[in-house]
Amino acid sequence: MSQSAPRALNDASPAFLEHLEARVGPGILRPAGAADLEEPRGRYHGRAGAVALPRDTEGVAAIVCACAEARVGIVPRAGGTGLVAGQVMPEGPLPLLLSVERLSAVRDASPADNALTVEAGVTLAGVQEAAEAVNRLFPLSLGSEGSCRIGGNLATNAGGVQVLRYGNARDLCLGIEAVLPDGSVLHGLRRLRKDNTGYDLRNLLIGSEGSLGIITAASLRLFPRPADTATAWVATPSPAAAARILQRALDRLGEAVSGFELIHRTGLDFLAEHMPDLRPPLAEGTWFALIEASGGAGAQVQDGLEAALAEAFEAGDATDAVLASSLAQRQAMWQIRETIPEANRAVGAIASHDISLPLSAIPEFIDEGLARLHALDASMRVNCFGHLGDGNLHYNVFPAAGRDRADYDALRARVTETVHDLVHAREGSVSAEHGIGRLKVDDLVRYGDPAKLAAMRAIKQALDPVGIMNPGALLA
Amino acid sequence: MSQSAPRALNDASPAFLEHLEARVGPGILRPAGAADLEEPRGRYHGRAGAVALPRDTEGVAAIVCACAEARVGIVPRAGGTGLVAGQVMPEGPLPLLLSVERLSAVRDASPADNALTVEAGVTLAGVQEAAEAVNRLFPLSLGSEGSCRIGGNLATNAGGVQVLRYGNARDLCLGIEAVLPDGSVLHGLRRLRKDNTGYDLRNLLIGSEGSLGIITAASLRLFPRPADTATAWVATPSPAAAARILQRALDRLGEAVSGFELIHRTGLDFLAEHMPDLRPPLAEGTWFALIEASGGAGAQVQDGLEAALAEAFEAGDATDAVLASSLAQRQAMWQIRETIPEANRAVGAIASHDISLPLSAIPEFIDEGLARLHALDASMRVNCFGHLGDGNLHYNVFPAAGRDRADYDALRARVTETVHDLVHAREGSVSAEHGIGRLKVDDLVRYGDPAKLAAMRAIKQALDPVGIMNPGALLA
Repeated sequence: MSQSAPRALNDASPAFLEHLEARVGPGILRPAGAADLEEPRGRYHGRAGAVALPRDTEGVAAIVCACAEARVGIVPRAGGTGLVAGQVMPEGPLPLLLSVERLSAVRDASPADNALTVEAGVTLAGVQEAAEAVNRLFPLSLGSEGSCRIGGNLATNAGGVQVLRYGNARDLCLGIEAVLPDGSVLHGLRRLRKDNTGYDLRNLLIGSEGSLGIITAASLRLFPRPADTATAWVATPSPAAAARILQRALDRLGEAVSGFELIHRTGLDFLAEHMPDLRPPLAEGTWFALIEASGGAGAQVQDGLEAALAEAFEAGDATDAVLASSLAQRQAMWQIRETIPEANRAVGAIASHDISLPLSAIPEFIDEGLARLHALDASMRVNCFGHLGDGNLHYNVFPAAGRDRADYDALRARVTETVHDLVHAREGSVSAEHGIGRLKVDDLVRYGDPAKLAAMRAIKQALDPVGIMNPGALLA
Repeated sequence: MSQSAPRALNDASPAFLEHLEARVGPGILRPAGAADLEEPRGRYHGRAGAVALPRDTEGVAAIVCACAEARVGIVPRAGGTGLVAGQVMPEGPLPLLLSVERLSAVRDASPADNALTVEAGVTLAGVQEAAEAVNRLFPLSLGSEGSCRIGGNLATNAGGVQVLRYGNARDLCLGIEAVLPDGSVLHGLRRLRKDNTGYDLRNLLIGSEGSLGIITAASLRLFPRPADTATAWVATPSPAAAARILQRALDRLGEAVSGFELIHRTGLDFLAEHMPDLRPPLAEGTWFALIEASGGAGAQVQDGLEAALAEAFEAGDATDAVLASSLAQRQAMWQIRETIPEANRAVGAIASHDISLPLSAIPEFIDEGLARLHALDASMRVNCFGHLGDGNLHYNVFPAAGRDRADYDALRARVTETVHDLVHAREGSVSAEHGIGRLKVDDLVRYGDPAKLAAMRAIKQALDPVGIMNPGALLA
């Protein structure tokens, strides 16, 4: 598995752009604006020779061919909501930004096959609506669903709040169409549940963050729409107690448990400070669980959830609880959960971490993590929240009240290293659902398995020998 | 994506074997016996210089290193139950057969994490038992589960009778440990539900049929054991009616529907002829569905299934039905289903096909397929049965009663081409769950997407430049 370093790329220069426009026709290229070059956390600022907005898969292929010939890098862009700077290239030869936003067709809906075929530029909310239009559910759900696009969700293997029941983006995809780095088109839009004909290129491209090709369309799995949903907001004394509530809910309800979020008081305090109109369902408590179960007609998820909670009260694992009695109440509970990241941004984190651990390792990790961080600086606050059901926590570290994140600039790298070292030691992942992008390239090298890294580099070199696809992302 | 043809491999000669034994120590190599060189359908006869039986992952790595240096091919072998000759190499330079049977430890069971870590040589039944021992379910289930081994199940992405609810082997695997073609060890035994740190090598190796490396251990997903199971044997007038029953069951029971098998009269006639002691639950009918639903306590799967069947009777989609009223009855129903392949072998198929289609395309395919085959030779009989819920049929073609498969030797290739052409035209797969092996290498080239094939070859060349891993399987 030897590879030679790729020769340097060329700029997407005015001469190249003129040549490209002659090949792909007018109305495809435009200058890059500020909004094209940003990422939500504002830590990276991209550069680009131009933005290309192809109208179809053939258009994507023509652009990729031209870039491959001219050795010009391509930064693919979908909704631009990624949190690890996979969508912005701040340095190196000027790339072309390739937006999939015009690939916006719903190509086919087949409720009888529980399948939906959409192009990469459809927003996640648009995919959900297309599923609903044929009386089905597309369960991928995340905070940015109004603006993120399914091509980006697949390129980054997005997670979100229903993974516990339905899996990550890759688990919801039956087939993909993609343009590979040599401009060839992978025609893999199958709607099959079983297909053992060769290497799993679908899963290789999903989660490759645009570094192996550009997903242009996907066949997605649909599910029956749940007839019945039960949602509860529960105060619990500790993460360990929350994990026991999860186990009780799973024992009672099996896969009907569709979401299990852990929330710490700190996040609610941030909300109270910055979004005082949002009132949490319970005033008292340190830890909270937001639990949702859903099922077909007659699945009696409300009864099951109530029974699980009754047991949890008896065992002392729950100290207070509210069950949503209306859709409005349910939505209000989820709004609290989904606004926490916004409150976090208003406060300004020293460092944010998107980690996962075996469920059984989480309670100890939370205690140990806080102890280690306080050994660095006892004034730091931690807002630990997230998808406990998936073992996935957003573990974000904040300044003391009244102080600024800039006061901790000197500590930032050690904070992240402390958290990630502990996660790694406990057999966890330093990127659970956000990916590597450019932000975590060094983490991948530091914590990644050497054989995995070597194989990844060999695959990258084999499929993208010129190195044009999202240069500097995932593998530097 | 250019690749050069690999230089020729060398024989696993006596001199090489002597050298290998000196490296790995005594008790690891033995001569290949007849049982090592067979596959269940008896169409291919393998050859091997010796069988290597390493005791641990390091032992596998040492053997792979030695073979890579000496350019000796390796044919990996787990349970040897595969149906596409992936486990036997009938021609070419004499390979070493590498059996994982001694990698037989259950390394870790973590019911709190719903995870089980086992070595590749544990039989599927052994994995199921290890899960049961911690009060969990490992749902992969297939006819050969007493002898197939989990390493082989993963290498071939096995399917079976519970895919509808729980997915294929790849969906049941959280992480793998594998020896790559250069002898390096991929340490990927994570037990995480979310891990977005780089390319999905787990899924790349799963289903690669030993052509990219040898899986030595895996972390598997466990599930709650269903408290309640309902099973029904239903007579139905047609595959279209059966598909409507499936839809009703899914509407009522959602993911609780764990199995939905379609069975044709022909298979029951074969059973009556060759295993007369096995009596199907219903005497009359042409098509039958075997339906199973399972759920947690209070899921009321029996009620749900009865309600779905009541609707099906009313609509004329079911004409008769038996619900299992005891475990013994349930097992008897499944025994009928699982003995059909044995009855098929007793009759002797002209050709067997393992195909999948979008569910909505199946009824028409079944009619059209029979018409096209009868246009070739009206005396042929078809036994079409299988996992309707997954769109996966075993579509096997038999001689007229009283005639022999040898009478149709001249037709065999056209029979398979006729079936596969029709499947391909309807956007189906010519290998749903059995894989490519050596049997379907030409089909992969004939029906495979050119861009996919080129990318597969580039990946094979990148990870296995010498071409030692299962030469001739999957990619010739």
